[in-house]
Amino acid sequence: MTKLVQEVEAILDQTLPSAAVVPEVLHESMRYSTLGGGKRLRALLAMAACAAVGGDLGNTRGFVAAIEMVHAYSLIHDDLPCMDDDDLRRGKPTNHIVYGEALAVLAGDALLTEAFAELARMPEKYGISPEITVRVILEVAEGAGSQGMVGGQVVDIAGQERELDADTLRYIHDHKTGALFKAALRGGALLGGANEEHLSQITRFAESFGLAFQITDDILDETGQAQQLGKAVGRDQSLGKQTYPRLYGLETSREMAKRCVEECHEALHTFSDKAELLRELATFIIQRDH
Amino acid sequence: MTKLVQEVEAILDQTLPSAAVVPEVLHESMRYSTLGGGKRLRALLAMAACAAVGGDLGNTRGFVAAIEMVHAYSLIHDDLPCMDDDDLRRGKPTNHIVYGEALAVLAGDALLTEAFAELARMPEKYGISPEITVRVILEVAEGAGSQGMVGGQVVDIAGQERELDADTLRYIHDHKTGALFKAALRGGALLGGANEEHLSQITRFAESFGLAFQITDDILDETGQAQQLGKAVGRDQSLGKQTYPRLYGLETSREMAKRCVEECHEALHTFSDKAELLRELATFIIQRDH
Repeated sequence: MTKLVQEVEAILDQTLPSAAVVPEVLHESMRYSTLGGGKRLRALLAMAACAAVGGDLGNTRGFVAAIEMVHAYSLIHDDLPCMDDDDLRRGKPTNHIVYGEALAVLAGDALLTEAFAELARMPEKYGISPEITVRVILEVAEGAGSQGMVGGQVVDIAGQERELDADTLRYIHDHKTGALFKAALRGGALLGGANEEHLSQITRFAESFGLAFQITDDILDETGQAQQLGKAVGRDQSLGKQTYPRLYGLETSREMAKRCVEECHEALHTFSDKAELLRELATFIIQRDH
Repeated sequence: MTKLVQEVEAILDQTLPSAAVVPEVLHESMRYSTLGGGKRLRALLAMAACAAVGGDLGNTRGFVAAIEMVHAYSLIHDDLPCMDDDDLRRGKPTNHIVYGEALAVLAGDALLTEAFAELARMPEKYGISPEITVRVILEVAEGAGSQGMVGGQVVDIAGQERELDADTLRYIHDHKTGALFKAALRGGALLGGANEEHLSQITRFAESFGLAFQITDDILDETGQAQQLGKAVGRDQSLGKQTYPRLYGLETSREMAKRCVEECHEALHTFSDKAELLRELATFIIQRDH
């Protein structure tokens, strides 16, 4: 897994315009928030899904860069003063603290746009068919869009300082984080040559994985160490956000996360041992400490 | 032209998610800033370029929606307090004045993302080939990205309150507005079945058109009526922005714009009378009063 993360880092470094390209400060800002940190979970999921259906990992190169750029953009915008107003991310000052608000908005905009450029370059750079390229672009755009990730963020922000019911909390997480996990997994599977049966199982995996991830994130926000998390703990609580531990208690939340991981493994029961990385990622996700 | 503008409006209305779709306030905000206003210049350019190469206007339906959504997103983000801090746009309060800053950032993000979704739906909805779809997506992403529109906005903001030289002013306009015009024109031409010779002439047209547009915009900012412009006049000056009239004087600026329009017509000299709309748009652009 460490080796794959290093590969993702190298691909991102090559894909992002160099900080010597005009406008230099924009490219520096984009690179600041995209390189040198993060679990690269979405990229790993994409590669694991590609491998799980018997595909060649080389096919995912443009895609993993794009999906990590979309993720990086979403973090920059989420951290803005008008959103969650966070100063610290992955142990470093957030983008707007370093570059100012205007450039943070624009670096996010540019990362999102360049992600789609990189996807559209997949036929030329990596020999992906235009048919698959278009399907993958649609997965990413729908996963990241108004009824996906951005929709989740809107409901999340609207819900601050209010008591949310379990359905609304579920909506937020399914969309804010789950939708991009699903795009990463389905996109990776498509690039690996998945058939419809594969895709439907991968989708089932994605839904349980997303929930397991989010419940664990909420638990870590209450119990984790700031140093390991690379961000302030108790942040959700201070923003008045609803979380799984607040709604169900810590113990039940842990059991829910565990049950989700079991469902992940069930979704993959017809897959060969090529799905091992995907299985490992599901197990890893609730055992992590950051 | 009025009829085409009404068609664009209808396509946008159908393409944007209804304000009844969750999250309702996000879709309302996206519709607020996209529908019911604007010259639809980018859409008209796309349709005119498609027609100019002998293409069927029906092929541009998804594309014109997408390009206007990208334009709408850029206006929402440009108007933010951390950018140009504008309260008025097309005679209406700007998005962040109505919906707040957080939602304005997110509505912009969602419009940009949905634009790419709509482009990726062109094969399924409008029978466009995946090959052309991918090329068009790359045109839009590169035109809107860090070395296109966003790059221009970065240099524009960095240049406020400084004396800019003519080269920097040209860079800003080529990128901030010119790059998306070029994407609209080249994308429209590609959807109309353009060959490489067509594309190269359309590109020449785009470059002169963008400059004519921007010089005229600067002139109107000094001489126009707020009511006709739908925004405050003298805005560039109060932001300390460099403009063509400030750099060259009003009369020389008017002559420069006129010369650009002549170059537009020269770029089209091998085109048939199917390029009439494109020719008219070039003439119109320096005669407008808003």
